[in-house]
Amino acid sequence: MGLVVQKFGGSSVANTERIKNVATRVISERDRGNQVVVVVSAMGDLTDELIALAHQVGSNPPDREMDMLLTTGEQQSAALLAITLCSMGCPAVSLTGWQSGIMTDSIHCRARITEIKPDRIKEELNQGKVVVVAGYQGISPQGDLTTLGRGGSDTTAVALAAVLKADICDIYTDVDGVFTADPRIVKNASKLDVVSYDEMLELASLGAVVLQPRAVEFAMQHKVKVQVRSSFKLETGTLVMEAEKMENNRVVSGVAHDLNVAKVALFDVPDRPGIARAVFKALADANINVDMIVQAAMRDERNDIAFTITKDDLPRALPVVERVCREIGASGTAYGEDLAKVSIVGSGMMSNPGVAATMFAALADEGINIQMISTSEIKVSCIIAADEIERAVNALHAAFNL
Amino acid sequence: MGLVVQKFGGSSVANTERIKNVATRVISERDRGNQVVVVVSAMGDLTDELIALAHQVGSNPPDREMDMLLTTGEQQSAALLAITLCSMGCPAVSLTGWQSGIMTDSIHCRARITEIKPDRIKEELNQGKVVVVAGYQGISPQGDLTTLGRGGSDTTAVALAAVLKADICDIYTDVDGVFTADPRIVKNASKLDVVSYDEMLELASLGAVVLQPRAVEFAMQHKVKVQVRSSFKLETGTLVMEAEKMENNRVVSGVAHDLNVAKVALFDVPDRPGIARAVFKALADANINVDMIVQAAMRDERNDIAFTITKDDLPRALPVVERVCREIGASGTAYGEDLAKVSIVGSGMMSNPGVAATMFAALADEGINIQMISTSEIKVSCIIAADEIERAVNALHAAFNL
Repeated sequence: MGLVVQKFGGSSVANTERIKNVATRVISERDRGNQVVVVVSAMGDLTDELIALAHQVGSNPPDREMDMLLTTGEQQSAALLAITLCSMGCPAVSLTGWQSGIMTDSIHCRARITEIKPDRIKEELNQGKVVVVAGYQGISPQGDLTTLGRGGSDTTAVALAAVLKADICDIYTDVDGVFTADPRIVKNASKLDVVSYDEMLELASLGAVVLQPRAVEFAMQHKVKVQVRSSFKLETGTLVMEAEKMENNRVVSGVAHDLNVAKVALFDVPDRPGIARAVFKALADANINVDMIVQAAMRDERNDIAFTITKDDLPRALPVVERVCREIGASGTAYGEDLAKVSIVGSGMMSNPGVAATMFAALADEGINIQMISTSEIKVSCIIAADEIERAVNALHAAFNL
Repeated sequence: MGLVVQKFGGSSVANTERIKNVATRVISERDRGNQVVVVVSAMGDLTDELIALAHQVGSNPPDREMDMLLTTGEQQSAALLAITLCSMGCPAVSLTGWQSGIMTDSIHCRARITEIKPDRIKEELNQGKVVVVAGYQGISPQGDLTTLGRGGSDTTAVALAAVLKADICDIYTDVDGVFTADPRIVKNASKLDVVSYDEMLELASLGAVVLQPRAVEFAMQHKVKVQVRSSFKLETGTLVMEAEKMENNRVVSGVAHDLNVAKVALFDVPDRPGIARAVFKALADANINVDMIVQAAMRDERNDIAFTITKDDLPRALPVVERVCREIGASGTAYGEDLAKVSIVGSGMMSNPGVAATMFAALADEGINIQMISTSEIKVSCIIAADEIERAVNALHAAFNL
């Protein structure tokens, strides 16, 4: 008997009809002789609606209280799915994050899982029940409810799959799998049958958010076999696995883009050790994730440092950056919001020179100016103007024959 | 420095405007130098909406899962009120039932509080915070979420007031207090300044549900001073206290009525010891509360037994009654639903003979037939046809010069 973890996102449980559809999929997995743990998100736009309510009563709601508010959404879906399963003759029980033993740190709204104690889940599975877990949430050492940030239910599912040693973690979503580019932008984008953890991690980080980056990290660390698939169709989706086990590594697997990008620049930063640390430690302390970092060439013993963060984090980053600017004696700051990131990703890239050059040429041929460049072993990213993103993605999709 | 527990019902927190109004009342209590614990219900009709959702996916949803679903409503209100208070400059923290240390038995959907461990609440109060507790809920010994039944937030508030030794427990509601009769039915019904626990208990049990009966029991046992008052007006409401401390005891304080009444009759029940036990133990085992019980005079060594339950419980009672009927060898059963209960309540009644006779005369003068009668030291109740209830209440209100 196998063990399967299934995760259903908000659109898959948006109303009671869809919840019944989910229950049918859960039961068919169980009928194949597998134990099933299901992780659910909040129904449809409920999380956004709750956030809107909170902003009606408080302009700057405390993170702890937001977590109290938002964790109710997943708890509701979990209870409703368990009720549906029971009414269809399938024994089921719903559990909150803390009942599932999901322990996190105390950083509200973006907590990290520190440990999972799956005793209760195992006990319920052993009694022949399907266990429905409220995704996206856990409990802090202080006994407070925490959430794992946007897309956190993916992380819940993969982490549970890891600790329960599940055979597979199926992530059901409203897309058919991972594509060579966003099908809404590139008409002939095609579905990938398989991607490596590394590729998926880059794709996820780059805004092709079919899977939360932290979930991919977790899967990679614990070698959890993950499949991204449609909750509305029966076809298989995209399998995420170790690159070594893949039959052939494509040079470029896909083109990703991200419009949630803001740029911050610090001018005339003194050229001495510890400066970068001062800048980025202050941001880390404020829990702001920095993505790309570019340091320009030395000029009169002073540097310019530029980096990108998500647009969402910009309001919180501004006071931190201004303070650091004064502290380190930089001459000034600048911010940019109308930006986008376009990236090519492929695990075969590292053994194929000239990939970056092909990318830059394709963008240049379209007359698109590159503002920042960042590379890793399996991806190249460029920051460009937001209104050029559609042309950029299509040009790159064509240039690499995807 | 005093300690005040405030409870706000669903209509008082029905939308964000009203939640702000609640926050204002909380803050003014705190400004008087008191520590404040606030207990909230779910927003407006949310509980009913969640129940409707559950019934869309399952005709007979498991009680445990209903509790998982419904506890989210109070958690949302608590978080939103805490956010509102914080944004108005008042430090506040919201707690779920289990975070507040409210331990219950395992009877889902109608759990009873077994113990309260208020350590977390005291800790937060000592830090100068207003503590907002999600009402209506607790945690079972198995670690499952439980609810206390309809109106359970009242019980949460009174139980917290008892364990925290609060100076007063203010129950804010959408009525001005306890009235001599339902003002919607009797035009000149007047507000009572004070009622005894006993009177309130009878009134609450009799359908004048401004306060959950279990909450009144709790208040009586622990001598908690309770005030029922309007959340929309500033006037004082009705104080519920010990009869001994009241200045004068009225013969009849009020007329109560209840339309949530169903009658069950068992015919030709054998006249031997243990029969009543067999009938009512079976109902108790099914968690069905029996209200009035009438056993008719003996006839050929066989009796008829009739009793009333709430209409809501009738579907669950039917199979139990049919089974008991066969087991004890009764000749048959009958059920009635178009019924109502009308009652007069007053703690001075026990020392005033003739009160019941006045009641029966008033009903007879209106041509209203009495189907069942039940009396206690401080009340007389009659079961009549539902469509005669309005005339009955008005006649009694006049007969006792209320």
